[in-house]
Amino acid sequence: MIIDCHGHFTTVPKTLNAWRQKQLESDGRISPDELKISDDELRAAVEGVQLQKLRERGIDRMLFSPIAGWMGHHQGTPEISRAWSEVSNDIIHRVCTLYPDSFVGVCQLPQSPGADLAASVRELERCVTELGFVGCNFNPDPSGGYWTDPPVSDRRYYPLYEKLCELDVPAMIHVSSSCNPCFHHTGAHYLNGDTTVFMQALTSDLFTDFPTLRFVIPHGGGCVPFHWGRYRGLAMGLGRKPLDESVLQNIFFDTCVYHQAGIDLMADVVPTANILFGSEMFGAVKDIDPTTGFHFDDTKRYVMAAPLSEAQRQAIFCDNALRVYPRLRQRI
Amino acid sequence: MIIDCHGHFTTVPKTLNAWRQKQLESDGRISPDELKISDDELRAAVEGVQLQKLRERGIDRMLFSPIAGWMGHHQGTPEISRAWSEVSNDIIHRVCTLYPDSFVGVCQLPQSPGADLAASVRELERCVTELGFVGCNFNPDPSGGYWTDPPVSDRRYYPLYEKLCELDVPAMIHVSSSCNPCFHHTGAHYLNGDTTVFMQALTSDLFTDFPTLRFVIPHGGGCVPFHWGRYRGLAMGLGRKPLDESVLQNIFFDTCVYHQAGIDLMADVVPTANILFGSEMFGAVKDIDPTTGFHFDDTKRYVMAAPLSEAQRQAIFCDNALRVYPRLRQRI
Repeated sequence: MIIDCHGHFTTVPKTLNAWRQKQLESDGRISPDELKISDDELRAAVEGVQLQKLRERGIDRMLFSPIAGWMGHHQGTPEISRAWSEVSNDIIHRVCTLYPDSFVGVCQLPQSPGADLAASVRELERCVTELGFVGCNFNPDPSGGYWTDPPVSDRRYYPLYEKLCELDVPAMIHVSSSCNPCFHHTGAHYLNGDTTVFMQALTSDLFTDFPTLRFVIPHGGGCVPFHWGRYRGLAMGLGRKPLDESVLQNIFFDTCVYHQAGIDLMADVVPTANILFGSEMFGAVKDIDPTTGFHFDDTKRYVMAAPLSEAQRQAIFCDNALRVYPRLRQRI
Repeated sequence: MIIDCHGHFTTVPKTLNAWRQKQLESDGRISPDELKISDDELRAAVEGVQLQKLRERGIDRMLFSPIAGWMGHHQGTPEISRAWSEVSNDIIHRVCTLYPDSFVGVCQLPQSPGADLAASVRELERCVTELGFVGCNFNPDPSGGYWTDPPVSDRRYYPLYEKLCELDVPAMIHVSSSCNPCFHHTGAHYLNGDTTVFMQALTSDLFTDFPTLRFVIPHGGGCVPFHWGRYRGLAMGLGRKPLDESVLQNIFFDTCVYHQAGIDLMADVVPTANILFGSEMFGAVKDIDPTTGFHFDDTKRYVMAAPLSEAQRQAIFCDNALRVYPRLRQRI
């Protein structure tokens, strides 16, 4: 059993994008009923693409969420964000219902800059208890690149964390697109978001307050494994407990690192228990690596080739995901 | 000959900080003449610390610049930034004059959010032509964590780049402290700045417009080497030339990565010609790594132990620095 913890519905029918554009242009005066996507359209949107690749690569389940770059929490009002999140999550639910043996839902939250988390708590509960989702994507910067909301350790977020703990589901930390021209979204903003939140957690008492809260930091944890010595040293210098006591009971990294040397480094420095298999297929990088002849995002190959034992690979491919996403157990 | 390209005067006498505080509190109504630091005080500030460590570690020269976290371009007016930069650079010049066989100057620029680069061009020229400095630190986010100024590819910066090319000196990309509570300055903001500028360069024609412009991206290039596959793939997907043609003639990374696995990864994926030895001593991490018994920032050990040939080590320790900082040749 191989579980890919990081997939987005990036091949969604264009109708959805048209609805979203209309929603933004009309200040939200559009009904979800105006969105017409048939089951056949949904099948066509994943059959020859994600599903085919999952089968080719021998991946059994993919945690599937709305397009991260389209969450666009900085666009429109909180009410627009709420309606858009519900529409996006319902589409994910339909795909997961059509292919229950391949896709498991992870939801987008209706965050909005400066807003409280009440709507997010409600949508999380709906998706988990009614739609069978197993986690959510949580945006640490709903401003889209200006970082005007507080750090994730702020008490503003505590109602969300209470609900995550109550439902026993993790949050993947995932920014959306950047409206700040300084940040290329997949080449800078995503990775910066990952790095930033790791440090926010390390310098706060978040996991003392929520010992069972779990964050999945994607894209290999941003730059954290590469700078593992820096983070171990910063923890010491700042008088925090060592990483394994302060954050590694609660933070997990995926394997969305698109070359062998990067995965080898993760395997070397990050405890196996903190690594979850993920590919982000189809995400930031869709091409074939000319130096290997395989897709950059075919991360299973790197994990297979990394200096890991069979038991370690089993943990990364499956067991860790079942521990971090316990509701997944009902789906395999 | 071993050249450390990345050192800040972090052990500066407290008098300097007091002057700076007074400058900010008085809206700049304080004269540089009010700052009294004797040569003996400067000697005491480096003798038992940086100088001792350089000798212990067998490092011959350190490129020495004002404290990055204190540049504080977001604090005060452009005029305050100008006066503070001059004071800071003059202190560096005095240390370099006292120890010409150990320290070589790199200047801070009087940037200010929203301001043009005219003052920076003047201060760069003064430091290089009058004080014998060999480079500058260039802050890609003078707002201190809100990224409200344009990307480094913006034409606003072109006068600075013209001067850098004319003087044949490189710029180290280095943000200052963060006034945004989201970003821990050495644990997130610094590394995010590095990553961000690499991507700004990759997605622009900056180095087509300035073929001889050289950026040193410190802290191992942020997360770039760890995500080397992602960047190679992004270059392909965005229709840019491969990294070695698009940015690697102009961008160099230092070795401020505080563990063996990180340096090994750099040695593996980054061309040797693009790696400069640096330690940032004393910077973000000052402690001893309990797993090795040596200081985290004793990066020479990692380079010595990395799978590199003697010729490659010679390039990283010395030859690359002389190529990137040609004015250094007069100082060795």
